[in-house]
This record gives sequence, C-alpha cells and structure tokens, in this order.
Amino acid sequence: MKVRILILPKRGLLDPEGRAVKEMLLEEGFKVKEVKVGKVVELEVEEDTDIRTLAEKYLINPLVEEYVIE
Amino acid sequence: MKVRILILPKRGLLDPEGRAVKEMLLEEGFKVKEVKVGKVVELEVEEDTDIRTLAEKYLINPLVEEYVIE
Repeated sequence: MKVRILILPKRGLLDPEGRAVKEMLLEEGFKVKEVKVGKVVELEVEEDTDIRTLAEKYLINPLVEEYVIE
Repeated sequence: MKVRILILPKRGLLDPEGRAVKEMLLEEGFKVKEVKVGKVVELEVEEDTDIRTLAEKYLINPLVEEYVIE
C-alpha cells in the first residue's frame, strides 16, 4: 500500500525555512499570511506495516514536529 | 485560503534522502518497497493568489521536481 506522511514543525515553534520563504514571497508581491515548510515521505509498504511506529520511531522528532498520515 | 504544495523528486531521479530512509527502514525490519522524500509547503494566502506561478517560479525546480497543489 502507498502511504504519505506529512511532517511539519509544531505550531509556534521555529520554522526558519518557512520564515525565509514567507519573506521572499512578500518581497515578490504575494500576500502571504503564513508559510510552513516541512517534509513529505511517501512510502510503499506491505499492508500490515505499523506506520505509526515507523513514523514516530524513525521519521519524526515529536518534540518539535507533528505529523499526519494520509 | 490555505493551500498545500507537495514537492517530490521526479520519478527515476536521484533521491538520496529517500534512498537513505529506505535502507534504514529495511535494516530495522520494515518491508518497504519504495520511499520518496520531498517537501511540503503550507501557505495561507489571499483567495486570488496565483498559486501555480508562485510554486513554479519560486518553490520548484521543474527539472528535477514535480509538485501537487492540494
């Protein structure tokens, strides 16, 4: 099965890349209110894979990141 | 409005981070067939924003990346 994991900085935490993108887009004339930059991991795995464990143990830093499995 | 842009390496192109994650997960016993690692950019912008131009001109390298707007 195909699984997509979105990993984003937790709200309120430092997101230097998001801030840089926001500033650049504002300078270019885009009216952006907020920008967050994170990672996406697309996996093809067997049906019985424990995605939550895989994500929490190997892909995420739970102190500063949150994730969504799709 | 909120927009999410997923940016992934084009199929068949080098994805060193995806390959590293795949190898590590295989070593840990997960039966993964494929792993792709890319970026997600979440934006809050005004309704009339030309997201496609914003993405193609400022966020994407069309030679090596493909993207999806959600």
